[in-house]
Amino acid sequence: MWGKSITISLFGESHGEAVGINITGLPSGIKLDLDFINEEMKRRAPGKSNLSTSRKEMDTPEILSGYFEGYTTGTPLCAIIRNRDTHSKDYDDLKNLMRPGHADYTGVMRYNGFNDYRGGGHFSGRLTAPLVFAGAICKQILAESDIVIGAHIKSIKDVEDATFDDMNLSSDLFENLRTSQLPLIDKSKETLMRQAILDAKLEGDSVGGVIECAILGICAGIGEPFFDSVESTLAHLAFSVPAVKGIEFGLGFNMTKLYGSEANGALYYEGDMIKTKTNYNGGILGGITTGMPIIFRCAIKPTASILKEQETVNLSEKKEATLRIKGRHDPCIVQRALPVIEAIAAIGMLDLIKRTQCQSV
Amino acid sequence: MWGKSITISLFGESHGEAVGINITGLPSGIKLDLDFINEEMKRRAPGKSNLSTSRKEMDTPEILSGYFEGYTTGTPLCAIIRNRDTHSKDYDDLKNLMRPGHADYTGVMRYNGFNDYRGGGHFSGRLTAPLVFAGAICKQILAESDIVIGAHIKSIKDVEDATFDDMNLSSDLFENLRTSQLPLIDKSKETLMRQAILDAKLEGDSVGGVIECAILGICAGIGEPFFDSVESTLAHLAFSVPAVKGIEFGLGFNMTKLYGSEANGALYYEGDMIKTKTNYNGGILGGITTGMPIIFRCAIKPTASILKEQETVNLSEKKEATLRIKGRHDPCIVQRALPVIEAIAAIGMLDLIKRTQCQSV
Amino acid sequence: MWGKSITISLFGESHGEAVGINITGLPSGIKLDLDFINEEMKRRAPGKSNLSTSRKEMDTPEILSGYFEGYTTGTPLCAIIRNRDTHSKDYDDLKNLMRPGHADYTGVMRYNGFNDYRGGGHFSGRLTAPLVFAGAICKQILAESDIVIGAHIKSIKDVEDATFDDMNLSSDLFENLRTSQLPLIDKSKETLMRQAILDAKLEGDSVGGVIECAILGICAGIGEPFFDSVESTLAHLAFSVPAVKGIEFGLGFNMTKLYGSEANGALYYEGDMIKTKTNYNGGILGGITTGMPIIFRCAIKPTASILKEQETVNLSEKKEATLRIKGRHDPCIVQRALPVIEAIAAIGMLDLIKRTQCQSV
Amino acid sequence: MWGKSITISLFGESHGEAVGINITGLPSGIKLDLDFINEEMKRRAPGKSNLSTSRKEMDTPEILSGYFEGYTTGTPLCAIIRNRDTHSKDYDDLKNLMRPGHADYTGVMRYNGFNDYRGGGHFSGRLTAPLVFAGAICKQILAESDIVIGAHIKSIKDVEDATFDDMNLSSDLFENLRTSQLPLIDKSKETLMRQAILDAKLEGDSVGGVIECAILGICAGIGEPFFDSVESTLAHLAFSVPAVKGIEFGLGFNMTKLYGSEANGALYYEGDMIKTKTNYNGGILGGITTGMPIIFRCAIKPTASILKEQETVNLSEKKEATLRIKGRHDPCIVQRALPVIEAIAAIGMLDLIKRTQCQSV
Repeated sequence: MWGKSITISLFGESHGEAVGINITGLPSGIKLDLDFINEEMKRRAPGKSNLSTSRKEMDTPEILSGYFEGYTTGTPLCAIIRNRDTHSKDYDDLKNLMRPGHADYTGVMRYNGFNDYRGGGHFSGRLTAPLVFAGAICKQILAESDIVIGAHIKSIKDVEDATFDDMNLSSDLFENLRTSQLPLIDKSKETLMRQAILDAKLEGDSVGGVIECAILGICAGIGEPFFDSVESTLAHLAFSVPAVKGIEFGLGFNMTKLYGSEANGALYYEGDMIKTKTNYNGGILGGITTGMPIIFRCAIKPTASILKEQETVNLSEKKEATLRIKGRHDPCIVQRALPVIEAIAAIGMLDLIKRTQCQSV
Repeated sequence: MWGKSITISLFGESHGEAVGINITGLPSGIKLDLDFINEEMKRRAPGKSNLSTSRKEMDTPEILSGYFEGYTTGTPLCAIIRNRDTHSKDYDDLKNLMRPGHADYTGVMRYNGFNDYRGGGHFSGRLTAPLVFAGAICKQILAESDIVIGAHIKSIKDVEDATFDDMNLSSDLFENLRTSQLPLIDKSKETLMRQAILDAKLEGDSVGGVIECAILGICAGIGEPFFDSVESTLAHLAFSVPAVKGIEFGLGFNMTKLYGSEANGALYYEGDMIKTKTNYNGGILGGITTGMPIIFRCAIKPTASILKEQETVNLSEKKEATLRIKGRHDPCIVQRALPVIEAIAAIGMLDLIKRTQCQSV
Repeated sequence: MWGKSITISLFGESHGEAVGINITGLPSGIKLDLDFINEEMKRRAPGKSNLSTSRKEMDTPEILSGYFEGYTTGTPLCAIIRNRDTHSKDYDDLKNLMRPGHADYTGVMRYNGFNDYRGGGHFSGRLTAPLVFAGAICKQILAESDIVIGAHIKSIKDVEDATFDDMNLSSDLFENLRTSQLPLIDKSKETLMRQAILDAKLEGDSVGGVIECAILGICAGIGEPFFDSVESTLAHLAFSVPAVKGIEFGLGFNMTKLYGSEANGALYYEGDMIKTKTNYNGGILGGITTGMPIIFRCAIKPTASILKEQETVNLSEKKEATLRIKGRHDPCIVQRALPVIEAIAAIGMLDLIKRTQCQSV
Repeated sequence: MWGKSITISLFGESHGEAVGINITGLPSGIKLDLDFINEEMKRRAPGKSNLSTSRKEMDTPEILSGYFEGYTTGTPLCAIIRNRDTHSKDYDDLKNLMRPGHADYTGVMRYNGFNDYRGGGHFSGRLTAPLVFAGAICKQILAESDIVIGAHIKSIKDVEDATFDDMNLSSDLFENLRTSQLPLIDKSKETLMRQAILDAKLEGDSVGGVIECAILGICAGIGEPFFDSVESTLAHLAFSVPAVKGIEFGLGFNMTKLYGSEANGALYYEGDMIKTKTNYNGGILGGITTGMPIIFRCAIKPTASILKEQETVNLSEKKEATLRIKGRHDPCIVQRALPVIEAIAAIGMLDLIKRTQCQSV
């Protein structure tokens, strides 16, 4: 369970009855746009193209509570997504054969062998579907205050997109990215990226990449110093998304190559508003928003499930073994992880905003 | 406040009465090694060399509670560190002149102008002294289970140290790093690094860098899927440390350049123990420890306080202004941030370990 | 959401799709006795006799996650109970006519009129069904350490049962109470109590009462001083149960009539065990268990839903009105609240026990 | 540590360096009235009369952080109170001789013998001094919204004061009670009460009593259903106060003697405001405020420390023993506990109010 003003509580296993989420602390009286929610679900859903797994899931959330006559009630909103197209037999061998790069072995150790191993069980990326659902609701609430979130694929393996120009971000750009299968700023890179994914697929292998996310419209003064900093909040949630191995804000690791005088960012007045001439700190200083766009990037590791033969151990035989994973896999999950990253950005920022009101100096 | 089984609650301002921390959930009966605690405090303390600020603080923690006849009592342990060598007058101008790259402006916005602006107030890096204190206690508790933590400076500006060879880490190496002013694996880089810092200092400027941290001796099966993953826990704490702008685990962002088949890491038996042939996942899969060393790196931005003239705004005059920050500054805080990163690693892992017992498969 | 080591997250409305609960922090490998769980559900379920509402609900929980091949997996366990026998039309008038003694008016104020008013919505006693489900699981886990929980009806209106003799409590007594429709120590009071309830029913009115609950088998040393005291934990949960208006531990309010010398309770050795000669403190000193039985009593107010005409307000007409509540009601909910009180005792104690291990002096 | 929007973290031992509290989540810009705070401290302080212990403590809080130029900064506010008049030698015997009715034995079991046993250590009522400090600040913040809190002694042993007439409560009455040594509605009972206490003192014994507390000025719609109900919140905090053994809201246990038709409380309009004709529910329905006064009572057990000889155990000798407690004791702590109960009411309500804004229907 996560959160202070908005709390989310996730449940489910990949091949169990359902996955779902219970969200508390939502304001009452929010008119939910179910079409928008379903579109968001589809952005993450599998089976859309040859770039991702052929498992087909409608991923239609069933709202069980907290929703009445078209509006949120303010009481806990729980939604579930039934699991349907499960080929559990594909996973029979995996009870004892630990898939490298997966949580199979750590799951056995954590739960003393009682975890549901089918399809990764509770560790499955499928658990991010309810996160996208929650994110879609949070996005609608944020949009009422003109706060919008967008993301693009910064890189797939060695193929790099351009970087967000944070002085020229707009909801139009985000809407354009939102409807692309491979959301890119520089569309000319699409063919190369697609090829990188399909090449890996052909080899029974996989690739990873980097997602860049931006949040616009947040006033200055949101967040807390130290433990509830904006960075702590977003990083906490981002590392709850399977396959994320790094996060950086603003220039991030590249900021360590600059002098302080280059990195700081001069302040100036634009009318009554105070802004910074550069935004290398990614819209956050001292853990608190500056009013500039919030920018962060997440590293997504290559999908752990690959068709290629791998070396591993067999727990029941207590010896080494080779493994060819059957089943349907994503040669690349970066494009499917992207709406999840947007979702956690929405959830995290709504939680912070509900706690701290915008102030004027 | 942070934590579930171990909770920490931080307080204080740079130029106020004291900074301090209240720690709850500590086990009773831990014999505290006060010498070790003081050594840890000294590693972070200012005034030790020409690489850091000349502000001199003894940083001797005064334990107010939870400690009796040499042992922890198990009740909340609060310690304070009095502020002594404060030159508050140096900061008089800063009430209205916002230092670029600092939390001055965001602090005003967050607290509606009532924050203590002297020396950064509550946002000061001085608040990390109590974190080091808490970390020193957690380290002692972890050491009883042979869990040790070490770190080195991976880079300062463009000068790169070697990378941890995670198949050859030892407490001896960590002890060696611990007693160095610039903890490096490749000692031949020390001169270059020192020069990079002093060059910046000469210009009234500052530099940043990357810290690499490793945790040894953690059994497999610690952590939780999703919101209390090891990565979420450590990242949350790391971004509570001022100046951290990025974190990555294992290969991190570079992992996105590999194929899945390269990244995964084959499993094998070493006697009864299951290990991975590579540790690109940094000792964590599905948010849970694998039993391999935990490896992460933090990006530390160049110190925001510089002597060079900068452009900013004057809040009382509501117009733009130039600023030369008086006072004593660190041309580089990477070496002082390093024991803080070790400390948060100790705090975070102890919190997780207390919740989840090691299992055998 | 509630809890530190065991957390529960409740959702649902009386006439919505379903009510349910998500439980995290359960140990893995607990074999669930579904028959026991269903028996517990039946103890709370409506429609069993003329003492409670004629609404019939099977109240069969559907486990969605965290349960695999007969055992808990250790991952979040979510269960839902579908709402079936809903006569929502009975509640049409209640959108604007606020039922006295109910949360109708406070719900409107809390949620700005967007709450689901049908059948009390989220405020309905029906939300205690998932609590009983969670309690049944916690009871099974506690039973593995020989910790058992029992309760009886201490009073209905003016009819008083005997008081627990806490030096002679046993699981046999609890089992006997568990299978009674009106669980009483002094069975001779059953007729009087039943009559008190039926008399009220005949008048279209309702009665309340007091439940006394005991927990056996808890070792000394569980709980925390101050904010996580055993009393704080159990009281917090008890007041989450609708209709509870008071709680007392040990002699409770009557303890204020004694001298300290009468109240304290001398300590003595029984073999190696330290016990107290009296247990007026209800098994708790300084917020921590003494090893003696934990005893507490909860006051349950008379059911707010009554058939009798009442004075109230009509929100849409903004004027006063009279109200006759249609629908099916409980003339007394004390007997149905009793398994809920046992359930929260189980949940609360499991949460505390998981955090603090039994020690030997 | 306790709280969601306001969090408090308590520390200290009776005979250690200091006791204290760290408060986070306070609004910035609150001008603290230090005189008021000190008056509140004095209401709880020992040594004021022959009704309480002769231990003299100035109990002057030293604010270490979060306070700047007369105003709260909004950052964590930590205050400590040094322990001065400690006669630790009085407690030497108590390392092994467990005082009946005290937490001595449970403390040993909880902390495996490492707890500071002097003067009750962390379990001492002295830890309530920082609670009164925090409560004084919360009271000032609440007062800005015209929310006021008052309490009187409902009973000492068998001597009963009148009950709050909750239709006629006012801040004038509260101010009058606040400045009385024995705050009573019916002043004619003062002599009897005083005599009851002094009689017990003469016998080396002690008495307890009941405190009734009221909160005025809270709008309707504050609180949450279930786990964060107003009752759960206040009860959680009340049972964190040593010696509290029961709490009830509104009519509490006596409400179980009424019919539903008597208990419910008809709603009516007073101008635009909706009120209830009776307030037997104590200002709370469904866990949420009705806008009527919040009323609750706490049972305070007789002081456990008495001079009379008592039977107990000697832990080091592992046998039974008799004990005469030396040191200075309170024959009655009800009058000193009263400002503590007011304090936790202030803390609890501020935490809830910060989360939920008042709505208009």
